[in-house]
Amino acid sequence: MLIIGERINSSRKRMAEAIRSRDAEFIRDEALNQIRAGSDYIDINAGSLEDEEDSVKWMVDTLQPVIEKPLCLDSADPKVIKAVLPLVEKTPMINSISLEAARLDSLIPLILERKAKVVALCQSEGELPSTSELKLELAGRLVIKVTDAGIALDDVYIDPLIFSVSTDGNAAIEGLDAIKEIMETFPGVHTVCGMTNISYGLPLRKLINRTFLAMAMLMGLDAAILDPTDIDQYSTLKAAKVLLGQDDFCLEFINDFREGRLKA
Amino acid sequence: MLIIGERINSSRKRMAEAIRSRDAEFIRDEALNQIRAGSDYIDINAGSLEDEEDSVKWMVDTLQPVIEKPLCLDSADPKVIKAVLPLVEKTPMINSISLEAARLDSLIPLILERKAKVVALCQSEGELPSTSELKLELAGRLVIKVTDAGIALDDVYIDPLIFSVSTDGNAAIEGLDAIKEIMETFPGVHTVCGMTNISYGLPLRKLINRTFLAMAMLMGLDAAILDPTDIDQYSTLKAAKVLLGQDDFCLEFINDFREGRLKA
Repeated sequence: MLIIGERINSSRKRMAEAIRSRDAEFIRDEALNQIRAGSDYIDINAGSLEDEEDSVKWMVDTLQPVIEKPLCLDSADPKVIKAVLPLVEKTPMINSISLEAARLDSLIPLILERKAKVVALCQSEGELPSTSELKLELAGRLVIKVTDAGIALDDVYIDPLIFSVSTDGNAAIEGLDAIKEIMETFPGVHTVCGMTNISYGLPLRKLINRTFLAMAMLMGLDAAILDPTDIDQYSTLKAAKVLLGQDDFCLEFINDFREGRLKA
Repeated sequence: MLIIGERINSSRKRMAEAIRSRDAEFIRDEALNQIRAGSDYIDINAGSLEDEEDSVKWMVDTLQPVIEKPLCLDSADPKVIKAVLPLVEKTPMINSISLEAARLDSLIPLILERKAKVVALCQSEGELPSTSELKLELAGRLVIKVTDAGIALDDVYIDPLIFSVSTDGNAAIEGLDAIKEIMETFPGVHTVCGMTNISYGLPLRKLINRTFLAMAMLMGLDAAILDPTDIDQYSTLKAAKVLLGQDDFCLEFINDFREGRLKA
């Protein structure tokens, strides 16, 4: 299970302040805390700021000297990713491409050149897929695009796009079915989800999010964009690994327990 | 999701004392608390006591006048169930039959006569099924036995027998696969599990148990023997219902939240 730490995102008010004021200590602490908590990648996103490109460049320069894990460059704007990529040393993850031609065509050569990993959204021009059938169809078109371009399937993390159960009662079921079908239909590919959309508009969001995480892992989800410092969610993730036979002899679970990293 | 409250069981030390000393107030409180917490049935078990039959009779006489929910008569000894059944007023659940001939043949006429619901264990003489294939095969033999006898499938709750992941790393996966296959192969039948075996021998058992519950519900489990006063588990169950489209417009979840019955 690959964990992409989501906390360095300007959509969080406190984080936007820290990025605007170039508070290096704050974002370094956030990165280091997420790595201690189990992040494999550190996502960085300044999409809500006016000077997105400069902000992301500053984040890369600030974080890179102090963290041992790679970055996940998170922007809806391919120009930002293109401008920032030359500064990035460790092979990053690119978040994200979709079937939108502009985004796809400009990013694919960069992904190939850097052998980067990439998040591929089940999203086409203006098309938001609510059913598992449509998600699977878009996933299939993404798989063709990336493999035709020469990107290894093992570098591709398909995001089926999870919507809120408060607006669509079937949102979780359709997303879970899509994860299963994508993993079965395209052996070797990965799936990834954010864990927050599902509970939008409801109370006790973290409870719903971590319950969804356990279900998604059962369906085959092997990467997640989440806050690894949320100890309840982290505990659910580690319990799910035990249940799914992904933790030999429960050694990881028992070790995490002894180190006080899990909560009953 | 049918909830069978498990707390009135002599395997709990404090409960054994209460039953031995015929502490009516204690077991009534336990029953009423479990009903307030959402139990549809109140399981009663005195299997670890010398005078099991007298104890269960006392429990029935003590609880029946004060609870509005039916009982689940839980004994490995068909003679005890046979002796107690005439005292029971509301149509009970019988826990349990298996493919062991002695148990099956003596209980089936009683189940039919009372139109009782019944827990049917995937267990034959000396055979403990560790794989989903074997669980499904035993479930099939149970379905034939009970339907041949004239018991409605809707009254049958098949327990696939869940073992501990600490002794068999595949125990959860095999159990989850079995739930799915049983529900798909025998439309109309129910599945039921206890939620404690899975974590035997591990720390943070409640965390593992409730994570397993969410996964089992995704596979189609529609009844569980559990402690409904465990608020973390209850919260997971209610979040799972939201995610699985079993809670229209999330009304039950939001109502439980407002009444303080859920925990983040």
